[in-house]
Amino acid sequence: MKIHNFNAGPSILPQEVVRKSAQSVIDFNGTGLSLLEISHRSIDFLEIIEKTTCLVKKVMNLNDDYAILFLQGGATLQFSMVPYNLMDQEAAYLDTGFWAKNAIKEAKRFGKVKILFSGKDQNYTHISKNYQIPYHVDYFHCTSNNTIVGTQMKTFPQTSVPIVCDMSSDIFSRKLNFLQFSLIYASAQKNVSSAGMTIVIVRKNVLGKIEKNIPSYMDYKIHIQNKSILNTPNVFSIYTSMLTLEWIEKKGGLSILEIENKYKAKLLYDEIDQNNLFENKIHKEDRSNMNVSFFLKDKKLEKEFNKMWRKENIVGLDGHRFLGGYRASIYNALPLKSVQFLIEIMKEFEIKFSS
Amino acid sequence: MKIHNFNAGPSILPQEVVRKSAQSVIDFNGTGLSLLEISHRSIDFLEIIEKTTCLVKKVMNLNDDYAILFLQGGATLQFSMVPYNLMDQEAAYLDTGFWAKNAIKEAKRFGKVKILFSGKDQNYTHISKNYQIPYHVDYFHCTSNNTIVGTQMKTFPQTSVPIVCDMSSDIFSRKLNFLQFSLIYASAQKNVSSAGMTIVIVRKNVLGKIEKNIPSYMDYKIHIQNKSILNTPNVFSIYTSMLTLEWIEKKGGLSILEIENKYKAKLLYDEIDQNNLFENKIHKEDRSNMNVSFFLKDKKLEKEFNKMWRKENIVGLDGHRFLGGYRASIYNALPLKSVQFLIEIMKEFEIKFSS
Repeated sequence: MKIHNFNAGPSILPQEVVRKSAQSVIDFNGTGLSLLEISHRSIDFLEIIEKTTCLVKKVMNLNDDYAILFLQGGATLQFSMVPYNLMDQEAAYLDTGFWAKNAIKEAKRFGKVKILFSGKDQNYTHISKNYQIPYHVDYFHCTSNNTIVGTQMKTFPQTSVPIVCDMSSDIFSRKLNFLQFSLIYASAQKNVSSAGMTIVIVRKNVLGKIEKNIPSYMDYKIHIQNKSILNTPNVFSIYTSMLTLEWIEKKGGLSILEIENKYKAKLLYDEIDQNNLFENKIHKEDRSNMNVSFFLKDKKLEKEFNKMWRKENIVGLDGHRFLGGYRASIYNALPLKSVQFLIEIMKEFEIKFSS
Repeated sequence: MKIHNFNAGPSILPQEVVRKSAQSVIDFNGTGLSLLEISHRSIDFLEIIEKTTCLVKKVMNLNDDYAILFLQGGATLQFSMVPYNLMDQEAAYLDTGFWAKNAIKEAKRFGKVKILFSGKDQNYTHISKNYQIPYHVDYFHCTSNNTIVGTQMKTFPQTSVPIVCDMSSDIFSRKLNFLQFSLIYASAQKNVSSAGMTIVIVRKNVLGKIEKNIPSYMDYKIHIQNKSILNTPNVFSIYTSMLTLEWIEKKGGLSILEIENKYKAKLLYDEIDQNNLFENKIHKEDRSNMNVSFFLKDKKLEKEFNKMWRKENIVGLDGHRFLGGYRASIYNALPLKSVQFLIEIMKEFEIKFSS
């Protein structure tokens, strides 16, 4: 029985990654020990973290100006760590949805926050490109992909101000010039690994510019000095990330994944647009290639549609609890055939219920 | 090939826990999905977190005054979270070793720290029982088991001041009156689960007494309101904790484990004491039942001893990198026969090298 897994996160991972990571729990590399039972300071694990670091840099085409960290606490802890480390007086934020709003809320505890754009009045269905980043702010923060509503930034502003980006739901999904960012963070449970780990990519020269009494776990500099093992990291999730990055490399890297992801998204948006029963409310140029949200024009049909997809081994299609409707999360590991299968179901539903 | 795993953490877990958790990565409960691919807000996972919560309470005999949280960031993040939430002006700490020192360092960022006892002058080989907790401090902090040097608090002070205890390396290893503590925290990678998760047990009425602008992830009250899913928690580690707690229950609970752990420790300390070649430097009444540290009286024999145990499939016996010597971590899941095997090796070594 094959499940079509459209979960928004934790979400589908490549089959071979799942298989190998299960194997490592039983016996890690023929050591006779489970991966869960080896020391994070063992040579075996130091090799894993080193390899994962190198793969992140290689896949994203980063240079040695950047440090790669594997932390805990999710993007939510980053919402505070970023201002703890980078905010002296004021930072500029884009309010593009639920998680961006939460990032703003946390930043306000540390100083002034200038909101350059808020999509709130338009229910976050649009992301402005017309905003000016004041030259004097300490950094500019944006959320590259908004998992809940289903929008995605396709371009990033040109600015001399350091750009900080929450890429939790679209890291490793497309090729970008990652050198334009000073800090990228992403929780692992979407395109990367199991939950409970956050990748932080930071250009080292943005750190150490402000005076603040930072708790050690919140201090990027301390994590860099300790190569992510200030304390025991999430060994299992880091190992699984390494497996995913190996899978990405084998596939041909981010440019190939970008083509695949765009194609899957296009097929699904095309179906939503041409199907009489469904609609997507996002401005076309801002539609996410990772999280495709859609609604039944006639809410009364929901019960019938839910019955239909649920009996076909589709999971995770419910929209976010704050929004309702539907959301197909079509991350890297989601096969094209799952998208095609969903489209078939939508077509069948249209034939049956279109008046 | 059976490995005798004396790792200090991450460390040995019960065989059936490892097996079941590997199985869940392949196929979780016959759902056709990996545990890594299910939503943390799915009914399946909500049941896991609820069951794990109940098991913690049951095993520790806690009542509903306590909330159980499953967080990230290790004990190291707790070193800051505790003062963030509980310190108004001043707190009292015991300096019983490396991790206690780190807890003190972080607390000092938030207010005054009164050190009631420091074992530093005696290389942390002893824990005083003769100290007075000033009635006016906000809380008293102690480390129940000092993993590196190998000491353990056998009793806790009587006081009206809230007791906060880092139990990272001996949680679930013995029966205590846990109601005497206001807050207990423990990283999971020793007696509980995979790394990357921290259990926090907090008496709810100690919270909310001070005014502080706490980052959301650092705020226990917010985690309680959100039942540990403010953001995506470490799903895999929480599930594995549930399996371990089921194993603990099946064994007969903490009183049985305490008997087993004391017995394993006694056998090993007895051997160290009677063996001409080895010594343990800890005051007898403070010896840890979890981490047994020992040294060769003649350092020149180290090479020979290392060769001997390493070829016998013993792993993790090296002392902490700051301390040298040897450390046998004999957590709940370490079988008696591994302790007996190590003792045989030590006896054999004595016969061979005793002059």
